[in-house]
Amino acid sequence: MMADPGLAALLDPKSIAVVGASDDPTKIGGRLLRFLADYGFTGEVLPVNPTRDTVAGLPALRSAEHLPDGVDLAVVVTAAGAAREAVQACARRGVRACVVLSSGFGELDAEGERAQRELVATARAHGMRLLGPNCQGVANLASGAVTSFSSTFTNFGLRDGPVAIVSQSGAVAGMLAALQHQHATGLRYWVATGNEADVTVAELVDAVLDDPGVRVVQAYCEHLADVPRLVAAAAKARRLGKAVLMVKAGATEAGARAAGSHTGALAQPEAVVEAFLRRHGVVRARSLTELSGLSRVFETCAPARGNRVGIVSNSGGLGVMMADAALAEGLELAELTGGTREALRAVLPPFAAVGNPVDVTGQIVQQPHLLTRVLPALAADPWVDIVLVALGIVGPTYDIDAITDDIAALHAEAAARGVLVAAVSVGGRPELAERLAARGVPTFDDDSACVRAVARFAEHSAWLRRTPPPAAPAVAAPLPPGTGLLSEHASKELMVSWGLPVVSGRLVASPAAAAAVDLPYPLVVKLCSPAAAHKTELGAVRLGLTDARAVARAAAEVLAAGRTAGVEPIEGVRVERMVRGGVEVSVGATWDPVFGPTVLVGSGGVHVEVLRDFRLLIPPLDRAAVVDAVRSCAIHPLLTGARGAEPLDVDALVDLVLRFGERFAATGGALSEIDLNPVFVLSDGVVVADALVRVADPAREEP
Amino acid sequence: MMADPGLAALLDPKSIAVVGASDDPTKIGGRLLRFLADYGFTGEVLPVNPTRDTVAGLPALRSAEHLPDGVDLAVVVTAAGAAREAVQACARRGVRACVVLSSGFGELDAEGERAQRELVATARAHGMRLLGPNCQGVANLASGAVTSFSSTFTNFGLRDGPVAIVSQSGAVAGMLAALQHQHATGLRYWVATGNEADVTVAELVDAVLDDPGVRVVQAYCEHLADVPRLVAAAAKARRLGKAVLMVKAGATEAGARAAGSHTGALAQPEAVVEAFLRRHGVVRARSLTELSGLSRVFETCAPARGNRVGIVSNSGGLGVMMADAALAEGLELAELTGGTREALRAVLPPFAAVGNPVDVTGQIVQQPHLLTRVLPALAADPWVDIVLVALGIVGPTYDIDAITDDIAALHAEAAARGVLVAAVSVGGRPELAERLAARGVPTFDDDSACVRAVARFAEHSAWLRRTPPPAAPAVAAPLPPGTGLLSEHASKELMVSWGLPVVSGRLVASPAAAAAVDLPYPLVVKLCSPAAAHKTELGAVRLGLTDARAVARAAAEVLAAGRTAGVEPIEGVRVERMVRGGVEVSVGATWDPVFGPTVLVGSGGVHVEVLRDFRLLIPPLDRAAVVDAVRSCAIHPLLTGARGAEPLDVDALVDLVLRFGERFAATGGALSEIDLNPVFVLSDGVVVADALVRVADPAREEP
Repeated sequence: MMADPGLAALLDPKSIAVVGASDDPTKIGGRLLRFLADYGFTGEVLPVNPTRDTVAGLPALRSAEHLPDGVDLAVVVTAAGAAREAVQACARRGVRACVVLSSGFGELDAEGERAQRELVATARAHGMRLLGPNCQGVANLASGAVTSFSSTFTNFGLRDGPVAIVSQSGAVAGMLAALQHQHATGLRYWVATGNEADVTVAELVDAVLDDPGVRVVQAYCEHLADVPRLVAAAAKARRLGKAVLMVKAGATEAGARAAGSHTGALAQPEAVVEAFLRRHGVVRARSLTELSGLSRVFETCAPARGNRVGIVSNSGGLGVMMADAALAEGLELAELTGGTREALRAVLPPFAAVGNPVDVTGQIVQQPHLLTRVLPALAADPWVDIVLVALGIVGPTYDIDAITDDIAALHAEAAARGVLVAAVSVGGRPELAERLAARGVPTFDDDSACVRAVARFAEHSAWLRRTPPPAAPAVAAPLPPGTGLLSEHASKELMVSWGLPVVSGRLVASPAAAAAVDLPYPLVVKLCSPAAAHKTELGAVRLGLTDARAVARAAAEVLAAGRTAGVEPIEGVRVERMVRGGVEVSVGATWDPVFGPTVLVGSGGVHVEVLRDFRLLIPPLDRAAVVDAVRSCAIHPLLTGARGAEPLDVDALVDLVLRFGERFAATGGALSEIDLNPVFVLSDGVVVADALVRVADPAREEP
Repeated sequence: MMADPGLAALLDPKSIAVVGASDDPTKIGGRLLRFLADYGFTGEVLPVNPTRDTVAGLPALRSAEHLPDGVDLAVVVTAAGAAREAVQACARRGVRACVVLSSGFGELDAEGERAQRELVATARAHGMRLLGPNCQGVANLASGAVTSFSSTFTNFGLRDGPVAIVSQSGAVAGMLAALQHQHATGLRYWVATGNEADVTVAELVDAVLDDPGVRVVQAYCEHLADVPRLVAAAAKARRLGKAVLMVKAGATEAGARAAGSHTGALAQPEAVVEAFLRRHGVVRARSLTELSGLSRVFETCAPARGNRVGIVSNSGGLGVMMADAALAEGLELAELTGGTREALRAVLPPFAAVGNPVDVTGQIVQQPHLLTRVLPALAADPWVDIVLVALGIVGPTYDIDAITDDIAALHAEAAARGVLVAAVSVGGRPELAERLAARGVPTFDDDSACVRAVARFAEHSAWLRRTPPPAAPAVAAPLPPGTGLLSEHASKELMVSWGLPVVSGRLVASPAAAAAVDLPYPLVVKLCSPAAAHKTELGAVRLGLTDARAVARAAAEVLAAGRTAGVEPIEGVRVERMVRGGVEVSVGATWDPVFGPTVLVGSGGVHVEVLRDFRLLIPPLDRAAVVDAVRSCAIHPLLTGARGAEPLDVDALVDLVLRFGERFAATGGALSEIDLNPVFVLSDGVVVADALVRVADPAREEP
């Protein structure tokens, strides 16, 4: 089933050797044997123990050297020193995959790091895959192949289900499994990668998606390694209609530092991580509880056709709070049709609210099957894409079976039409939530958590509806010679060669030549030098020049200002048309050493980095993603005609970003940074008014 | 104990009449008697039933007319029609407080609204307080006086505790009680106010705070009514060291509309509500779960001395996630002293992280009292104000008693020093959380919820440390004559009379007079008319005039532009100095019909409403609140020297806002709106460059 036979052996072993096996279940080597028995593993188990003939009733081998040929999986639980020998022996015996639970390697010191590199070299030399070291192992809940010492497996009788948990941290993997168990759903795979000397989270995410039994991957990373494999995995998930959910910790500088202190990894720029995950449809959660809640929706629901919510509650107040939360999370409140309202009025008591949210009131106590009539009416409304059923305090006189039946029936029926149904029970009897969950309805005990999870799901559904961008359009992106910063004129010429709408201008050498430039007034004069990035601060810009004499004087002044400030080399003076009206935005790009090209769109002006009103995008870009990015900026209302102003040409801005992003990606890293700021968005078109290009130094950065 | 004897009788009745009493516990009148017995009410219970001699074994009265004198509380459970007679009878018999559970009043139609007004008139005529109608009643868990039909009281054996729940919605009050019960703490009072014909949430919040047994009030409102009483209650809470926590639903327009549909109340502007609650130290939650979590911290913790967090976890990953969350919520991560690090290094295994977060690793299994040594070291660090203990997966080999003892001991000891201790158990054994809660440690099952609650608590502690502003400083605020908009010149003259730093300028009638104005160049010329609020759009502004001839020409042009546009009346031309450099902000004020004066500070420019980069403040202002508001704006880094620019005079901006806010409040509503935009913040001082004042129309708005 899986492309890599080593990973297949790791995830679904038929034979397991335990190196360091013990009779004592309080020792790790004993606990593993106990887990294999308790979870019903029926494959071959081969205990290895240097002093015993049998362990836990099974014949034991004295050393890994005596393993039969081609064991699928060996688990090494000995101390670090012995682990090195064991790994060598396993590799020589043709073991397909080896889990090294032992610590004392890269996480400890430089010597451990060296030993760890040796383990990997040994494994690779023999084509054996290696999980860990310093990891909590792997489990397959379908076969019972539990080769982990996590106390998660002791605390809970975990069961098979549609989720794979793949985590750098064993403790986090354990918490996720516990949350999964609390919500009465199961998991197929559980893997904790530890030091990731060989097998990575990205590879495992990719591999577990091949299992038809897996619908959702819950991933935990502190550092995104193996980016191309993660991209491939995300594409596979999209193709197969599965979801990858992730907590990427270390989002803040302090968090990243803390993560670094126990994994040694470097901080990754948060805005780029965010853009990367969004680009590839990896759904991000901020806490394990949120991840678990998201998973409940993704495990049980078909993609939603839209983001318009209809809310039904037995508490007016709960309905209002959910409406507030829905709007705050980017969902819309459905405007019910007249027909729906009439249908609701016919079945609800006269004092009930038939708007949205619908308040069925305590009447549900008298009419246990009130939802039978209310829910289908709401879910049949063409404007309702998502039905949220919120129940507060379900007393002893509520007929829980009837309510469960009604909600579960709607959930099953509506899915085929792309209508999502989720439930909330706040402070109610626990049986209600349990029965709903057992019937496959995603159920929450907190209204805001429900709304948040559903909002992320609806965003993901929208992403699935979008046509994926072509892999990488073959475009030509002319490049300048040299390295380092280009002057404004050279930068703009490059952008012109890329087909971008740049303000017209000429490079001239003298005030007289400036005066002779044949462009319509008013004009702008700027000193032109690769060493004058911040011209305004230098006094090297003159705006609004309305005749030749003013242009000549301005040219002389900016040249003098440049010389006074010691600017060198001075290429001359750029004389260009002055752009007026519209709204200033900025468009930029940088080449990230890990993630490659990133494109920025945001508000313009000198303070874009300070105000942080921007969004990053990762090429190849699709139009919908760019539109979405522009919409997410605080300045967006200015572009669409705030304060009664005429709406501006947002389409042209989107075209510019698409074209710019394509070409920047096509440079393959030859340019390290471009800053187009400001770009004026006008009522008809856009125009780049300033540009700054930095060419990468090939000696420092691999293009 | 309470000022209002009617409210005292409502909240702590010694005698209770049940009008509509029944033997049948499935009926409301029977359920009430059952609750009174079950919850151990030992006062007098007087069933009223028109056809029975005894009810539930108690002698019954035929009618409320036969009640003895001065019964504390009567509960009316009959249909609406009979309820009106019952209320009249109760009022005549000198009942102190009456709870009308019956519906069919203001929530139904205009006739119900009339009937409701009658109830109130009857009650007021006899000095009787009235809760409801259409409410779920009131309960005192100390005395067992449960006069509510909420199934909350059936589902759970609620117990006495330090919380009062006061809610417009009965269902919400029920959910809050259930959450309180789930977290093993109790409540003293439970009140649902329903239609609030007489007794309001604000009054009840004020009243329950008088009870020494109440530490925290959990309030739910969809509309803030009775604002002065709420202000008084908040002041009382501050004085007594108690907290008022609130969910104010209807924060979005759609939410407010939904709330209005079942309470009839109007939407309240969210930014003003937010400012009001912040001003008065009312801690806001966005969901009931969040409210309940906040309550756990406020119930059990003394105010924190600061916001620097030290995190201890048995999972490195959990520690990293909490560090991320702490920074996102405005907390700081404490930088541990060298001494603390050394102390930690001495007790932790070599591979454990001794930075912050501290990772004690699974070593706690081998050393159950590891926290005994780690926690005091962390809590003794002078840089740690808050200790968060986060435990993920606590396996069967963990010594839960030892861990609980260690955390609870620290919680008790550290409180005296203003150090807050809270705990998180994610996916762990439920006993751990239960035992910690039983020992008074605020405990969460979600790391991000814990951090959020602790962050709000730390903010409240900071608010408590601030000196409250003087009630209302006695300042003179000169007022202009007339109504409606003032011209820019008149607006600026008013601001000068308030002592604000306004850019120097003169009002002149002609181009010649403009040319003669004796102010240093460059100058600005603007058309001056109360009808020309948007001068730039009119072409009625000229900037950067450097000599008398340019000034004269500009004056002629703007006058012509005004006449062409039909502007009338034209007061003349304002000639003023041109402000250069610095950063533009805006300062404004409006007089809200419910909340009174509100003051705005935010980014400047024409698009302040679009970009929404502002914060509202409610006078009287204190310096710390203004500083905090300025800091919360996205432009703040520009004021403090971003991009290596020199830092600007933020103190002068704060002074301006304080002076402006004082004077605006002193107008008593005579001015409806002021907009100072832009105000330039310079390296030395601030200057108001544009001003617009609107005088209230006394015919339309009561000053």
